[in-house]
Amino acid sequence: MEEEQVIRMDLCSSGKEKPQSDQLAFGRTFTDHMFLMDYTDEKGWHDPRVVPYEPLTVDPSAMVFHYGQSVFEGMKAYLTAEGDVQLFRPQRNFKRMNHSNDRLCIPPIDEAFALKAVKQLVALEKDWIPEAEGTSLYIRPFIISTEPFLGVAPSSHYQFIIILSPVGAYYKEGINPIKIAVENDYVRTVAGGTGEAKTGGNYAASLKAQEMAEEGIAQVLWLDGVERKYIEEVGSMNVFFKINGKVVTPALNGSILEGVTRNSVIQLLKHWNVPIEERKISMDEVYQAHKEGTLEEAFGAGTAAVISPIGELVSHHEHLEINSGQTGATAKRLYDTLTGIQYGKIQDPFDWVEKVEDIRQGTLRASG
Amino acid sequence: MEEEQVIRMDLCSSGKEKPQSDQLAFGRTFTDHMFLMDYTDEKGWHDPRVVPYEPLTVDPSAMVFHYGQSVFEGMKAYLTAEGDVQLFRPQRNFKRMNHSNDRLCIPPIDEAFALKAVKQLVALEKDWIPEAEGTSLYIRPFIISTEPFLGVAPSSHYQFIIILSPVGAYYKEGINPIKIAVENDYVRTVAGGTGEAKTGGNYAASLKAQEMAEEGIAQVLWLDGVERKYIEEVGSMNVFFKINGKVVTPALNGSILEGVTRNSVIQLLKHWNVPIEERKISMDEVYQAHKEGTLEEAFGAGTAAVISPIGELVSHHEHLEINSGQTGATAKRLYDTLTGIQYGKIQDPFDWVEKVEDIRQGTLRASG
Ligand SMILES: Cc1ncc(COP(=O)(O)O)c(C=O)c1O
Ligand SMILES: Cc1ncc(COP(=O)(O)O)c(C=O)c1O
Repeated sequence: MEEEQVIRMDLCSSGKEKPQSDQLAFGRTFTDHMFLMDYTDEKGWHDPRVVPYEPLTVDPSAMVFHYGQSVFEGMKAYLTAEGDVQLFRPQRNFKRMNHSNDRLCIPPIDEAFALKAVKQLVALEKDWIPEAEGTSLYIRPFIISTEPFLGVAPSSHYQFIIILSPVGAYYKEGINPIKIAVENDYVRTVAGGTGEAKTGGNYAASLKAQEMAEEGIAQVLWLDGVERKYIEEVGSMNVFFKINGKVVTPALNGSILEGVTRNSVIQLLKHWNVPIEERKISMDEVYQAHKEGTLEEAFGAGTAAVISPIGELVSHHEHLEINSGQTGATAKRLYDTLTGIQYGKIQDPFDWVEKVEDIRQGTLRASG
Repeated sequence: MEEEQVIRMDLCSSGKEKPQSDQLAFGRTFTDHMFLMDYTDEKGWHDPRVVPYEPLTVDPSAMVFHYGQSVFEGMKAYLTAEGDVQLFRPQRNFKRMNHSNDRLCIPPIDEAFALKAVKQLVALEKDWIPEAEGTSLYIRPFIISTEPFLGVAPSSHYQFIIILSPVGAYYKEGINPIKIAVENDYVRTVAGGTGEAKTGGNYAASLKAQEMAEEGIAQVLWLDGVERKYIEEVGSMNVFFKINGKVVTPALNGSILEGVTRNSVIQLLKHWNVPIEERKISMDEVYQAHKEGTLEEAFGAGTAAVISPIGELVSHHEHLEINSGQTGATAKRLYDTLTGIQYGKIQDPFDWVEKVEDIRQGTLRASG
């Protein structure tokens, strides 16, 4: 994109009814508008536009349906008590999107422009941001390959789309410990695969393990695909263990997703002088710590659920209870601090928050 | 599906122009009609119909765009010199589709009904089957998850679609040896993953290796994701090596696709009393055989290319020339026999061929 791109605005005349804050499900309701942008090899990314939320028209032979060339991101817009709209480290999402793009052979997007597009769309849909505690506007940017061609090769046409969904808390019960199962049969991905990328295939691969898991299992804990010993991550969260006063999380090894929440947790722990190690951690180490009584806490960290304490870890009919099934102090402090910063309730010493200005219906210029 | 399902026919009045036989690309042109069928948790698979080929209308939040829950198949319809239309072992494709469905948590289809749907659609589009040597009508059945929901869980809505594309030979040069690169960095999948299933994510994961491969590389040869030593398969083909008079192919280990062509090759070789082994085979064994002069042939086998002799194998700047870069006798015999059976030129001792009756515009009944 060499010229300045202007986002064309094609707004709908009347909006849909908004759901009640206490009736929000996750990812089921979408706002009145969406952002779209097209890519062709000849024109690059072009024709950015905000249009009414409506079905896409996609050829049955579009490559995304057959060869899964797609990436996505997930972030949230938060409403503060003062009525301001805030994003949390959105730059990292678009950086990660480009990282995913690279792995999936999708042409890179202009990260700064994508952020402006999000801001413009969120500003337009401000009235859709729910107000109740723990609720937010979930933002889903994604790219799909749309060339009508049945051949295994990178597509020459793509669409970059952003949709918005007002969401309640991810786990209806709030910050309550969940039950996680260690997955011993299925593998999500392996080094050299697509685990570091946020692409559909990783999630498609994960469904079966969840289906096979016993009742009451919130998500599964993935082990590495090679030795089936080392902990990778949970369904849609990175994972942390507090053992003997130290927090440990699996190092970025090429097969786990680098979570924005993970990075924020690590920074907060360092800021608080809580020892934090990024390294390989095996299930054996966790079992051993549990046996010795040094497994103090376990929790997942991700945008959707923020911090999710793990109260019970199930593996091969063994049930490990962690911290008597209660939320630990570290998980609680992280949850309160992260949500505090996100909702503008506490100070943001890290400059993580990005304000969305009230520019309703204005147009946006960005150099591409 | 408890009742008999009738395929509703909604035909277009005038057809598109058909491409010249000598100008056929692979997977770029589609016929006038397609088959569709819907699934909901309440109704099961329902409303089978043949409609004009046209874009699908899909919600931007449809799960297939985000979480990659999709499967597909690939088979061909062949026109014989007598004007008959033949399919090659299509039952295996729908059986494999259900195997893929199971791995991807997609509800199973009625295999017999799907085959009838293919036959009805192909019969209707008979005029689209090209006549020239090596050409055929490529059949692409696929299932996509269409529930509008941003959550990692199996979809509750799906569409099963069949589209048809008249195709020329997969490799324009015909049965000419290709150059294959051994992939040492990227991994397609691993045991416990989705390698046995025909699902988009496997192909999305494969694009990068192809992009990184040097000029002139037709496809890459995947090694196992654990030890990175054992041969798995080629991009869209299973692979065979003839070493010292014996043919060897990697055993089905849970991470490679069970090809219909692979199975047919094995049966043919047994029928001919050519020794054939399905077992682990390492790249070291292939290098060693090459060094000792016992690596007689290598070839890929798949629906699109039928048999593709491998004339050169590239790895870490080593170039192995196989059979002086010529098509070997075994590859040639397999190619001639398989295409001979498919095009009705030679006898079919295995009952592999399935005729498509000329039932244009008739309706079809099947119990679901
Ligand atoms: C597989 C996986 N791991 C980890 C995460 C957490 O990442 P983030 O904190 O950026 O939401 C997510 C969710 O985005 C995920 O899908
Ligand atoms: C990964 C992969 N392996 C092998 C094959 C060969 O299978 P078949 O002979 O059924 O076409 C294909 C093509 O379908 C494939 O995509």
